[in-house]
Amino acid sequence: MRLIQLDEIVPVLEKKPKVIEAVKQGFISHAKGEIENPEPVQMLFGAEENTIEGDCHIKTASSKSLPYFCVKLATGFYNNPAKGLPVNNGLVLLMSSQTGAPLALFQDDGYLTSVRTAAAGALAASLVLSDKPITLGIIGTGHQAELQARWIASYCDLAGILIWGRSVDKANTLKIRLADLGLEVKTATSVGELCQSAKLIVTTTPSTSPLIIASDIRPGHHIIAMGSDSPGKVELDPAILGQADVILTDEHFQCLHHGEFGHAVRAGRISETKDQSFGLALNTAEPLGLSDETISVVDLTGLGAQDLAIASFVYQALINT
Amino acid sequence: MRLIQLDEIVPVLEKKPKVIEAVKQGFISHAKGEIENPEPVQMLFGAEENTIEGDCHIKTASSKSLPYFCVKLATGFYNNPAKGLPVNNGLVLLMSSQTGAPLALFQDDGYLTSVRTAAAGALAASLVLSDKPITLGIIGTGHQAELQARWIASYCDLAGILIWGRSVDKANTLKIRLADLGLEVKTATSVGELCQSAKLIVTTTPSTSPLIIASDIRPGHHIIAMGSDSPGKVELDPAILGQADVILTDEHFQCLHHGEFGHAVRAGRISETKDQSFGLALNTAEPLGLSDETISVVDLTGLGAQDLAIASFVYQALINT
Repeated sequence: MRLIQLDEIVPVLEKKPKVIEAVKQGFISHAKGEIENPEPVQMLFGAEENTIEGDCHIKTASSKSLPYFCVKLATGFYNNPAKGLPVNNGLVLLMSSQTGAPLALFQDDGYLTSVRTAAAGALAASLVLSDKPITLGIIGTGHQAELQARWIASYCDLAGILIWGRSVDKANTLKIRLADLGLEVKTATSVGELCQSAKLIVTTTPSTSPLIIASDIRPGHHIIAMGSDSPGKVELDPAILGQADVILTDEHFQCLHHGEFGHAVRAGRISETKDQSFGLALNTAEPLGLSDETISVVDLTGLGAQDLAIASFVYQALINT
Repeated sequence: MRLIQLDEIVPVLEKKPKVIEAVKQGFISHAKGEIENPEPVQMLFGAEENTIEGDCHIKTASSKSLPYFCVKLATGFYNNPAKGLPVNNGLVLLMSSQTGAPLALFQDDGYLTSVRTAAAGALAASLVLSDKPITLGIIGTGHQAELQARWIASYCDLAGILIWGRSVDKANTLKIRLADLGLEVKTATSVGELCQSAKLIVTTTPSTSPLIIASDIRPGHHIIAMGSDSPGKVELDPAILGQADVILTDEHFQCLHHGEFGHAVRAGRISETKDQSFGLALNTAEPLGLSDETISVVDLTGLGAQDLAIASFVYQALINT
């Protein structure tokens, strides 16, 4: 078994188009029903009854089209910062689905998850982009906000980037960090102002109440919602999904459970048959019918298929060099 | 994170009394409800629909009395021998339940599981042993049969060992391998003959039909059933549990699901309230009332608490040296 550290992983993931293609194939395999995703394991930790100081989630995925399966452990321990440690930790195991042998252990500090999420954003952006460069609006200023900007910029033709975050300082810091992209990068003073200029909007926050309201959105807006990855999180006014001409979900039932899609269904804004498969949309040459006259929402909650795709990609790249 | 190979693990597990004590505390913690055992993950692999060529089981356990939790992957790929590979593979991860950090990865080839199972046999034997040395009967001739003999011999006062297996050659080979114990080791030509001489009997086979029948068993027989670790496996005639004065189970619901206990309940031989907790029996000074006049069955199906106990023991031993 190969033990793979972050310093080996980072250079491999610089090959952005290849990474995006691998993640795309993961989405397509998932949509075709070729991925097995057993129910995740959740463990909770706390010294006292009813206090949660930490958790561990274990997700697994196997694919009929890859000779591997993966097991991903992700931990969050909320008192770690007081000990000088990051909240999140974890690792990814890649196993042979032909012999059951452990092949690789990635001590990646969550980086594979971050990048497979950014690659999904780039794929979603490529679906909704028109033929002329448009402005990307990023809501959120964290690590994933930066990755979304970089990965979408690497894959799509952008006119510029506009950033909004609750912290003006963090928005300015992200603007400076993105200077190397060679694009015009600005900050917006409000979500409404961001929506005035940006047609493609990516939301990357852990918000538990809607940040974009329905009146911010007009025909020609295309939203990629990355933040709502667990129950309670929500970034979009459910009415926006009611206005949308096209809604794509990475996994129908998962998005129904804890995505923006589910919020809108429960709010009575749409029926639960309103979504289309993101993976199938990636696999067809048929246009989605998006234009300056339509509104779309891509609801991405994160798939084991993405973890498996990116871990397999890195492993194959490393054993072939 | 420390990567721990088998050659580091084996010497630590030579400290048998300490290993047995650690596993004992695991059973006691489990019985007291201090262990969290989420539902295991099961993945199945096969090239064709409805063919199973391999499987992977993921078991997890955390304990309120240890600063660790463990995640155990065990794979079985049934075409491996044709490729010159062992059927079983896997690994054990030990994680901090205080920070979520990965602490150790044991590439143990299943050895931690084998030894924690042998330690459980020794603990069970110590519960049912009388004050004078008695003969141990081992049914089965595999790796676990040898470990049971060694671990019980290290912990209990034996008069001798009698072995029965379906293969006479394998029984003879095991007899020779156990010569270093300094005990009289013999083979029996039948289970009935073994039961004539051995009062303490350990079953360690993957049998799917009963090997010991009710007429083999008389008062004074104490049976430790190790083999039935998944549905379909059974080593004891259900009528034996009907005759037993004491039945101990490592986990009531697990033994009901796929232990000897469950077979006997479904066969209508006993009620499902007939068992007592093995872990609580280990934790009390009160005698179980076993004697030459009683029959007992200890049904051991294997617990995550044992995995956690032995992985924690090895880890602590290695970081303290």
